[in-house]
Amino acid sequence: MVVRTGDNYLQSISNRSKVEIYVMGKEVKDVTKHPFLKPSVMSFKATFDAAWEEDTKELGRAWSPFLEEEVNRFNHIHRSPEDLAAKVKLLRKLSHKTGACFQRCVGWDSLNTLNIVTTMMASKGKKEIRDRFVEYLKYVQKNDLALAGAMTDAKGVRNLKPSQQPNKNAYLRITEVTKDGIYVSGAKANITGVAATEEMVVLPTRAMGPEDKDYAVAFALPTDSEGVKIVVGRQLNDARRMEEGEIDGLPYFYNHEGLVIFDNVFVPMNRVFLAGEWEYTGTLVEIFSAYHRQGYGGCKAGLGDVIIGASADLAKQIGVDRASHVQDKLTEMIFLTETMYSAGIAASLNAVKMCDTCWWVNPMHANVTKHLVARFPAQIAQLSIDLAGGAVGTAPSEWDLKNPKLKEYISRYLQGAEDFTAEDRLRMIRLVENVAMGVAFQIESVHGAGSPAAQRIMFSRLYDINFAQEVAKKLAGRKSEVKFTPKAEPWRDSQSEAEAKELKTKS
Amino acid sequence: MVVRTGDNYLQSISNRSKVEIYVMGKEVKDVTKHPFLKPSVMSFKATFDAAWEEDTKELGRAWSPFLEEEVNRFNHIHRSPEDLAAKVKLLRKLSHKTGACFQRCVGWDSLNTLNIVTTMMASKGKKEIRDRFVEYLKYVQKNDLALAGAMTDAKGVRNLKPSQQPNKNAYLRITEVTKDGIYVSGAKANITGVAATEEMVVLPTRAMGPEDKDYAVAFALPTDSEGVKIVVGRQLNDARRMEEGEIDGLPYFYNHEGLVIFDNVFVPMNRVFLAGEWEYTGTLVEIFSAYHRQGYGGCKAGLGDVIIGASADLAKQIGVDRASHVQDKLTEMIFLTETMYSAGIAASLNAVKMCDTCWWVNPMHANVTKHLVARFPAQIAQLSIDLAGGAVGTAPSEWDLKNPKLKEYISRYLQGAEDFTAEDRLRMIRLVENVAMGVAFQIESVHGAGSPAAQRIMFSRLYDINFAQEVAKKLAGRKSEVKFTPKAEPWRDSQSEAEAKELKTKS
Amino acid sequence: MVVRTGDNYLQSISNRSKVEIYVMGKEVKDVTKHPFLKPSVMSFKATFDAAWEEDTKELGRAWSPFLEEEVNRFNHIHRSPEDLAAKVKLLRKLSHKTGACFQRCVGWDSLNTLNIVTTMMASKGKKEIRDRFVEYLKYVQKNDLALAGAMTDAKGVRNLKPSQQPNKNAYLRITEVTKDGIYVSGAKANITGVAATEEMVVLPTRAMGPEDKDYAVAFALPTDSEGVKIVVGRQLNDARRMEEGEIDGLPYFYNHEGLVIFDNVFVPMNRVFLAGEWEYTGTLVEIFSAYHRQGYGGCKAGLGDVIIGASADLAKQIGVDRASHVQDKLTEMIFLTETMYSAGIAASLNAVKMCDTCWWVNPMHANVTKHLVARFPAQIAQLSIDLAGGAVGTAPSEWDLKNPKLKEYISRYLQGAEDFTAEDRLRMIRLVENVAMGVAFQIESVHGAGSPAAQRIMFSRLYDINFAQEVAKKLAGRKSEVKFTPKAEPWRDSQSEAEAKELKTKS
Amino acid sequence: MVVRTGDNYLQSISNRSKVEIYVMGKEVKDVTKHPFLKPSVMSFKATFDAAWEEDTKELGRAWSPFLEEEVNRFNHIHRSPEDLAAKVKLLRKLSHKTGACFQRCVGWDSLNTLNIVTTMMASKGKKEIRDRFVEYLKYVQKNDLALAGAMTDAKGVRNLKPSQQPNKNAYLRITEVTKDGIYVSGAKANITGVAATEEMVVLPTRAMGPEDKDYAVAFALPTDSEGVKIVVGRQLNDARRMEEGEIDGLPYFYNHEGLVIFDNVFVPMNRVFLAGEWEYTGTLVEIFSAYHRQGYGGCKAGLGDVIIGASADLAKQIGVDRASHVQDKLTEMIFLTETMYSAGIAASLNAVKMCDTCWWVNPMHANVTKHLVARFPAQIAQLSIDLAGGAVGTAPSEWDLKNPKLKEYISRYLQGAEDFTAEDRLRMIRLVENVAMGVAFQIESVHGAGSPAAQRIMFSRLYDINFAQEVAKKLAGRKSEVKFTPKAEPWRDSQSEAEAKELKTKS
Repeated sequence: MVVRTGDNYLQSISNRSKVEIYVMGKEVKDVTKHPFLKPSVMSFKATFDAAWEEDTKELGRAWSPFLEEEVNRFNHIHRSPEDLAAKVKLLRKLSHKTGACFQRCVGWDSLNTLNIVTTMMASKGKKEIRDRFVEYLKYVQKNDLALAGAMTDAKGVRNLKPSQQPNKNAYLRITEVTKDGIYVSGAKANITGVAATEEMVVLPTRAMGPEDKDYAVAFALPTDSEGVKIVVGRQLNDARRMEEGEIDGLPYFYNHEGLVIFDNVFVPMNRVFLAGEWEYTGTLVEIFSAYHRQGYGGCKAGLGDVIIGASADLAKQIGVDRASHVQDKLTEMIFLTETMYSAGIAASLNAVKMCDTCWWVNPMHANVTKHLVARFPAQIAQLSIDLAGGAVGTAPSEWDLKNPKLKEYISRYLQGAEDFTAEDRLRMIRLVENVAMGVAFQIESVHGAGSPAAQRIMFSRLYDINFAQEVAKKLAGRKSEVKFTPKAEPWRDSQSEAEAKELKTKS
Repeated sequence: MVVRTGDNYLQSISNRSKVEIYVMGKEVKDVTKHPFLKPSVMSFKATFDAAWEEDTKELGRAWSPFLEEEVNRFNHIHRSPEDLAAKVKLLRKLSHKTGACFQRCVGWDSLNTLNIVTTMMASKGKKEIRDRFVEYLKYVQKNDLALAGAMTDAKGVRNLKPSQQPNKNAYLRITEVTKDGIYVSGAKANITGVAATEEMVVLPTRAMGPEDKDYAVAFALPTDSEGVKIVVGRQLNDARRMEEGEIDGLPYFYNHEGLVIFDNVFVPMNRVFLAGEWEYTGTLVEIFSAYHRQGYGGCKAGLGDVIIGASADLAKQIGVDRASHVQDKLTEMIFLTETMYSAGIAASLNAVKMCDTCWWVNPMHANVTKHLVARFPAQIAQLSIDLAGGAVGTAPSEWDLKNPKLKEYISRYLQGAEDFTAEDRLRMIRLVENVAMGVAFQIESVHGAGSPAAQRIMFSRLYDINFAQEVAKKLAGRKSEVKFTPKAEPWRDSQSEAEAKELKTKS
Repeated sequence: MVVRTGDNYLQSISNRSKVEIYVMGKEVKDVTKHPFLKPSVMSFKATFDAAWEEDTKELGRAWSPFLEEEVNRFNHIHRSPEDLAAKVKLLRKLSHKTGACFQRCVGWDSLNTLNIVTTMMASKGKKEIRDRFVEYLKYVQKNDLALAGAMTDAKGVRNLKPSQQPNKNAYLRITEVTKDGIYVSGAKANITGVAATEEMVVLPTRAMGPEDKDYAVAFALPTDSEGVKIVVGRQLNDARRMEEGEIDGLPYFYNHEGLVIFDNVFVPMNRVFLAGEWEYTGTLVEIFSAYHRQGYGGCKAGLGDVIIGASADLAKQIGVDRASHVQDKLTEMIFLTETMYSAGIAASLNAVKMCDTCWWVNPMHANVTKHLVARFPAQIAQLSIDLAGGAVGTAPSEWDLKNPKLKEYISRYLQGAEDFTAEDRLRMIRLVENVAMGVAFQIESVHGAGSPAAQRIMFSRLYDINFAQEVAKKLAGRKSEVKFTPKAEPWRDSQSEAEAKELKTKS
Repeated sequence: MVVRTGDNYLQSISNRSKVEIYVMGKEVKDVTKHPFLKPSVMSFKATFDAAWEEDTKELGRAWSPFLEEEVNRFNHIHRSPEDLAAKVKLLRKLSHKTGACFQRCVGWDSLNTLNIVTTMMASKGKKEIRDRFVEYLKYVQKNDLALAGAMTDAKGVRNLKPSQQPNKNAYLRITEVTKDGIYVSGAKANITGVAATEEMVVLPTRAMGPEDKDYAVAFALPTDSEGVKIVVGRQLNDARRMEEGEIDGLPYFYNHEGLVIFDNVFVPMNRVFLAGEWEYTGTLVEIFSAYHRQGYGGCKAGLGDVIIGASADLAKQIGVDRASHVQDKLTEMIFLTETMYSAGIAASLNAVKMCDTCWWVNPMHANVTKHLVARFPAQIAQLSIDLAGGAVGTAPSEWDLKNPKLKEYISRYLQGAEDFTAEDRLRMIRLVENVAMGVAFQIESVHGAGSPAAQRIMFSRLYDINFAQEVAKKLAGRKSEVKFTPKAEPWRDSQSEAEAKELKTKS
């Protein structure tokens, strides 16, 4: 079966024996049963279910020319601008189903990135690497695997290059190359959803020079490989999940990030995609980042919808939903949400063709998308807190509501309008608390796919400021050399393959 | 010749004898020679030249199935999402050529609006109106006419309907219908570029009910028709143009708005498209607004480019272009500019098919575009003033620079780095002053195509807040009826004709 | 001893036997030992210690004319603008000591409010109530009691008045009056620090009319009175405290809010300050709100300092503290922080004299202060998350760091620059997580002392928009009646008692 | 007469024969009659009238211990925090009278700056310079002179020091010293109101080192001195004034800036305050900047009031004043305006005592004030344009309204509600256009008293970020050296002379 069901994934992920995962200092054997990780597993599961559920079935699948079969879209190589838009639309809908990050995009974007980069490599004589990748891609698609993408290194001192670090393993590095494969040591940090995946695709995190050759490494690996240790990170409000209540830790879906430690890990050669080819690292990072930045226009807009809905419901519960300032705040939340989505759609439909059947997002629009996402969620959250009322920081626990000595009081004093119960209010308050103030919306939005400063660097690079100056000089009646032919900006002007050449030849 | 040159337009517009135009209280005979209006005429001319100039030739033309010939894109009916995107791209480039509003979009959007509305009317039995419109459209395309779109009424007391106004002509109305045509009286206000046009397309400005029947009127008319009087409005810094200098009033291109008075004007029946059919007014206004809101993503981004370029050049002139805060402000201006553009591109490429060969913009993205345009230009302008320095409010006049007693002093004290002259600096300062603080960027951006409050109403209407609430309720574990099938939102989910039906059947 | 030590307070609060407090559904006997409440108790304690510690001793005490002795400033009646400024300065310093809300302001502001209101009542013949209050005040000062201020009611349906509510107890009400006292039922919600106090001062939450007479009730009461039940509310990240670690739940100080249920509680007459005098409720609420809004200029600026310091340290830890964008973000945080503080200082020093020795804050500046506090902390927090890096949402737990199998890995991969350890980094990350994203900074800042909409109502009321219109009309050369004598605005123009009359006579 | 009337000033300023002033390239003899400058003269006049008019008489005067007589406050040395607050209050009221910058603050702030600096110099043995200054001050006060403050130099290449500039006169410099006086050459740019003043006080514009000795120069000089040439700068919409209408150029008051050229100008020694003492330049600039930044909290808030009033009136004129979004926008404008004012008041009342009878503003609050002023006016203006409607960029001229052929039409179509005439509307539109978009509100707000980047440097310098880091470290449980005794920050902690010592000893 090529398109798996959620249950099939659940069964598979439950049965890993060798995997080494730690949560709050203790080893976890079955991620599907652990209260901290289960919500995260359920989010992953939703990406499988989406391929079967009525409302997302069409978006959730795509036809793969590699298998000549339908695959889960999360392992699909984008073949058109419409494919890219389908990604954004699917992510928005999945946020509606989970209220959380469902964690399967990083792996997806890694596949698409390697697809372009290995195509470039093939055109420069590295056809065997291209072949390895295609083999791996088919394996992933055929088995509908849950992938993590592992990119961010520990990084040590930020203003030093990998090879300059006092800690030699601050960036993941190749310690030995044999004819069968490579050995790597180091760590990848902030790896989304990794404890709930079957495979990891590992990519370099920055552009490197020849001196950083040992750090120019990309490969794929089963998550339960020998020498791999996963330490799951803490998150705002995480300890609520350990209480195993049914209200205070809402929603039932969540996400997690892990520190992945590689302690002299062996990677067989047929899964190695970069091992020292530093000259591809810059392009690889740029391609990956843009893919991942585009996606936020979908998933964060979807979380925006959840928060808008919850805020509107809470306003109704206390009888203020018709107040003009409430309406105005909801409208502002809609505007902010739809702006993020618009940019994501533009990044998709105004795409760049990179090869016969592969399309990259528009990098300028994709960076706009992410930079909006780094700003607007905090504003949306603040508005939702405004609408939710002080109760979002003061409401009693579900255990109080269930205490027979308190139940009646709390039922009476937490209730607003008569159509709603105190439990209705409590549930919605907790949803706002955990989604609007949660890591996916507040922290991942800022740092995911690169911190705001990274997008600003891209704005300077992608924008042709010399052209803008020539335009201004001409309008000011000063001698100008502009003939109104700016440097090629394929992401702005066209969708043709020809114009994407410059990009491809950069590497 | 179907695609006219700019000179051809200039000649035509110069030769109107009957037209009645007033500027600052005095009648103007030849708009091409009047210092107040000439820059505006030059902007219009640029839309014709664009169809011939190397860098815009391709975007500036389109193939019309009505004529089976190439026409100037400004009179073209959009036949695909790519056509809509071409509009946004063309507008950005034209802003680079003019640094001003080139005023030809309102007429263009009016044609596209009437094309959809008359198609709807035809499907409800009003085929003769459709025929009239097609005849008119062909006439316009064949003669490559410069059109104004005249929509906004005087409006009187804003919270009263047309028929409730103390001044019966506060909205343009039909005073008499004969078998040959209709007579109208009233005024259209804020009519962009009207004094430089050959024809006006007149549309109703708001949704109307049966009681406002007499005000439900749409038609086309030569600008120099009997009984039509045009009073050109004042603008920030307008009097500079009357000085006839060559620096202080930069750029040499500009735009204007006119109050168009209709004093018992006769419109022949073959040019009447609505005369009492109030039931189409709401749809007509909604379709027009979205078209016009989309366009701002192009032209205002183009003005953003001009201002970014001018600011960067001024920073270089005084030697601060490498300062980190200067770089950061330029980057912020790029981000704001590209965000407006992204939304405009999304509104284009995620379009809605309305008939076999006609496409409407995505209304949600189009409203996002305009709402961004109502906010960001003031921020861009503030940043540009920050970068341009206090001189933008204190620099001497060009007449001082030309005064032999002062020339040497000013040359010495206005100069920054040695590569630039005082005149270089003065010219660029004036460009910032007149573009960043000009009406096109500061006021039209807020009010054009509807004030911000109008977009907010559209956000509430287009967004399915009930669906959002059901999503939140489900995630909160409360009883929810959501089956994840929101109300049809063709602008979000798809591009198929089928799904646009709901919209079409509203009227 | 009039000025107690922190230990003295701790002892007293530990020994309450009758108090009925619930945390997460379970009754708590000793609040000083309970992991959820202990940090909150420690914050209260800091307000006592401040009166003895070198750096705050002077600010922490004040001379009371009621006792003719020095008292803890938290129970002091402000006798000058400098007293009001001392409040703001003290609060900023206490935030440095706790990194949390120390919860003693509401009681303090309640005392000052009742001092003014009972003075007004005395001048209208209710001298016995004034006497009761002065007695109570002296009792509080002499015993240096920890007070809660209990104002916000459950409120039920927000757009209905107390007497219109379906739930008769949605607002706290008098159910019976005897010659010895009154009986009250209902609840007060969001009561800051209440479980750690010795007494509660209860005030009405809104302006009331004659029909709401039964709800116009103000009094004081020991926290452990018969019939009083306190249900402590949940907070973002609260469950961390239950883990009893030493890092993940940082800082060691915190705050809490409680739902206080009054189930037919008897209040002896000598502690009743309002029982039906609805005509004072509006003034009382306005006076209280302004006092409380002013204070936020101190405590939230102090939290801003903590977050700025933590962010700067984290930047240093990973070697980016000299990067221009980091410096710029820190500067922005400073600006936002100092703006809140400036407004609080203005509200203090531009005060309004209300009686011989009592001063009210400037209400306009106080509302400005709070409205800034409702906006800026979310921005400060977002900047701090930007600077803190993704680790704030992904870093491992302290339990991982302590696990011998992981310790070495985590020490290596969490460390940045060599001068700092992984534990240094983890501790600072947790501080940012719990302070910047904590309820005190994110939620109390929005809703404390009234939600943003409440300040906006005050802006409209306090600002003389008619005067502004007359000014504009005169400058526009239109007939204006302005003689430049606006309505008395004591908070703007002066500090004299005379001009405060209008305010006093409102009630 | 020590306190002059406005008419007395007018007469004096009209009678200067030697002054050399250029406007738009032409020499102006009588500034009181020139259409460009007259509005500026009228604003100056308002500062004299204010000392006699009922509503400002008290604020407009102060008792001078130098003369032992009452003087116009604009030449007064601040003797208390209340004096400083009186400045801010007076400025707000004067903005109500003029709707413009009244230009007399720079001279005032220069006097107060020199008063502190010469006191410092006296304490270091330069008593004769102190005596010179006191003599000059008494002369100014006795004759109630209109002063300009001339600080900003031409500056050439911004990243080079004065002595490094290719143009040796890029900063004003001493070319010769004789026993009778000094000769200076160079220019001062952006000099507010200079053409309407009787004297100029000239100060250095930046901190200098020993190598820039020749540029460390401060003195006073009659405006009509030999060798001084004033070139008045252009401003947005300035040419309207040349039309000599009565509506389109509203308000009738305005302000101007001039480039002051010094061509080998002789300054007698008794008017020289710095001639080579570079070590005082840093302190001088810091003291001046803070004084000037504080003042903006008054005058810009006053302009805010004018714009709020005009916007409210326009909303009423078209019948939308009760719409919730209109009310909300007005409230936002009030909030922004009152925030700027609050900071100005804090800067005044939380002042620093610098000598027995002289007070400096609080520098932190003063920088907050100016930084708010650099941000909020653009927001207020944008809101006012939103409320004023598109007409602010499209309304006809007054000449159209006066044209008999158009008058009736325009009266009918420009009118909104029946209580107002078209002229009422036109006048108010022009007021918004010229005040909200005028240089005083849009450009001076950004650059006056230093551009935004200059305030940000001050934030870094004034804020004790090391203390903040120690606080954070202590709260994080890390070893910290904080004993909670930050470096002396007199502006934050106190108002005592003792604590200001550090500042004074910096020079």
